[in-house]
Amino acid sequence: MSSPFRVALLGFGTVGSAVARRLVETTGADGGALPKFHLTHVFDRRADEKRDAWHAAGLTWTTRIEDVLQSEADVVVEAIGGVQPAADWIRAALAAGKSVVTANKQVMARHGAALLTLAARQGRQLRFEAAVGGAMPIVRAIGDGLAGDRITRVVAILNGTTNAVFSRMEATGCSLEEALGDARARGYAEADPSADLDGSDARAKLAILCALAFGLRVDPSQIATRSSASIVADDFVRARARGGTIRQLAHAEYDRAASVLTAWVAPAFVTCHSFFGKTAGPQNAALITGAHSGETGIFGAGAGGGATAVAVMSDIVAIARDRSAIVPPPVLTSDFRVQIADLSAETSALSVETPELHVETSRLLEAV
Amino acid sequence: MSSPFRVALLGFGTVGSAVARRLVETTGADGGALPKFHLTHVFDRRADEKRDAWHAAGLTWTTRIEDVLQSEADVVVEAIGGVQPAADWIRAALAAGKSVVTANKQVMARHGAALLTLAARQGRQLRFEAAVGGAMPIVRAIGDGLAGDRITRVVAILNGTTNAVFSRMEATGCSLEEALGDARARGYAEADPSADLDGSDARAKLAILCALAFGLRVDPSQIATRSSASIVADDFVRARARGGTIRQLAHAEYDRAASVLTAWVAPAFVTCHSFFGKTAGPQNAALITGAHSGETGIFGAGAGGGATAVAVMSDIVAIARDRSAIVPPPVLTSDFRVQIADLSAETSALSVETPELHVETSRLLEAV
Repeated sequence: MSSPFRVALLGFGTVGSAVARRLVETTGADGGALPKFHLTHVFDRRADEKRDAWHAAGLTWTTRIEDVLQSEADVVVEAIGGVQPAADWIRAALAAGKSVVTANKQVMARHGAALLTLAARQGRQLRFEAAVGGAMPIVRAIGDGLAGDRITRVVAILNGTTNAVFSRMEATGCSLEEALGDARARGYAEADPSADLDGSDARAKLAILCALAFGLRVDPSQIATRSSASIVADDFVRARARGGTIRQLAHAEYDRAASVLTAWVAPAFVTCHSFFGKTAGPQNAALITGAHSGETGIFGAGAGGGATAVAVMSDIVAIARDRSAIVPPPVLTSDFRVQIADLSAETSALSVETPELHVETSRLLEAV
Repeated sequence: MSSPFRVALLGFGTVGSAVARRLVETTGADGGALPKFHLTHVFDRRADEKRDAWHAAGLTWTTRIEDVLQSEADVVVEAIGGVQPAADWIRAALAAGKSVVTANKQVMARHGAALLTLAARQGRQLRFEAAVGGAMPIVRAIGDGLAGDRITRVVAILNGTTNAVFSRMEATGCSLEEALGDARARGYAEADPSADLDGSDARAKLAILCALAFGLRVDPSQIATRSSASIVADDFVRARARGGTIRQLAHAEYDRAASVLTAWVAPAFVTCHSFFGKTAGPQNAALITGAHSGETGIFGAGAGGGATAVAVMSDIVAIARDRSAIVPPPVLTSDFRVQIADLSAETSALSVETPELHVETSRLLEAV
């Protein structure tokens, strides 16, 4: 890999700036593990302010998306977030012959299949490890590593912010507001954490995993969701009295014979020593059940710019290693029925306890 | 993917026969998730006996390796085990223009870099997810998913047989011999489990992970190893009195600044509620530390034909999806020093406890 691999960046926020730093500090000398990169452009609406705070050789700051689309960049990294204009810009970058790496779960949940099809038609790659699970490589685990199995269930903690808040409440007995303040101070929560707490962040990620794991075209709005915002300190006291705690879980199970999907995101009771009960701070975790492999688990850093930047960098490396690799567009079906999970029967968060999950998680990690 | 993807199989033992069954039962109709395969050849020294026990349409049984090398197969699956003749046959298959999927840790640990280089030169693929960790996709997690990080440490349970034996001893108080008998009855142990117990299986796998994680050319013989065969029921009693249990751990840590590798495989004390203490039965588990991602964990089924077949199938699917994909040969250095771990100072298995590991594992999963 003689010439540097050219990367342009959309968005210089928490994730984008972390990616920019990694790209510039990677010199290609590190035992050949990573190639040498050239960060050619940073597009940001506030480029004029931000350019003064951070410098890199040979870098053009711009507020015009056209500058990126018409550039010589091999890869465009989309780290803007939100559905629009991010989706349009990913489409435009692919149309302009770029490969794209995105951290955008909302775009991938809603437009992923169409964008992946466009990328394949263009002979380019769209990679999205960073859209789900932060540094935890769950997109590759489900999409590649377990591609040879028939996956029947995915249960996961997919929102690092809510997990940091819940484990803080559990450890200190503080209120949700206090725990949120702590998470903000540590860089794990945005100014507005409503999408984290209400479950809309996790359900977009779960919709992506349903496409990868089951081949289903799931709109995030089809996933029953109960907000975690109403959990109070006393809920943790009650959970502890039962030997457990509370986590925001994302649950998807597909009965292929009946073509029925059960999917929900909600605060749920888990036992203290279970896999999910042990997942503390801004971590993410997932338990994947396959017909032949049984249960495979994965966990890792789920929030923060540095962790998400690892996933973005891994996708950039994959493209640099094999510029003509095929990322196959998923063959998705809409021919399934969603079984509505009843998450509103009781007001207590604990009402969503699923004994089956409880039992199986216990079986896995409490066997001894 | 209109025409079936042609696969030839070397070895019809536990793994090979499980792969054969999966290939034949995969009809391509399962939502397009898997392509349709054609199992063209099964090579086995005892083909004449085995052909009567299992039938598949359009399948040629053979005892001549040339039949496979000269066939139209797109992919050759090597499931023979042992270094030779497996390494020669993988080389011959690549030279004949086939891609190869192997479950062979001994070959990949000793000849992986050279074979991957040959594959790249041939424009073919050599994939080896099944060589480490059974169904647990750790090769992709380290080689792809965390490729964007700088990995500093890997600690893992890599031998499902020994783990099944140890967790049986722990749960029932039985002897190692009795636990081995139980593992054999469940299909988790070979007639001769000496390579599992003495650590030579795990250290071959650890050498592969050192190449992927650190870019180091490590010969398995460089990895200090203490056998697990001398562990007795009483060791578990003593471990329990200290709040823990015993696991065969594989540990590799690389200090890049000093170019020093510390690597060992040995029975070690772990706390009961730690990640490794909770890993029971024939499972594998790994904790990967990255400079930017912190700790990423993964676990899954580590022994048994069905689990290993999932990893083989995933590699076949990857090749079927992208027949010209590049699996980059690793750029390995031999310019490092091995720090010899002192595993023989005391006779008790418990002497290899590493407080650092103990602490860090605890920090991760006992934080709450």
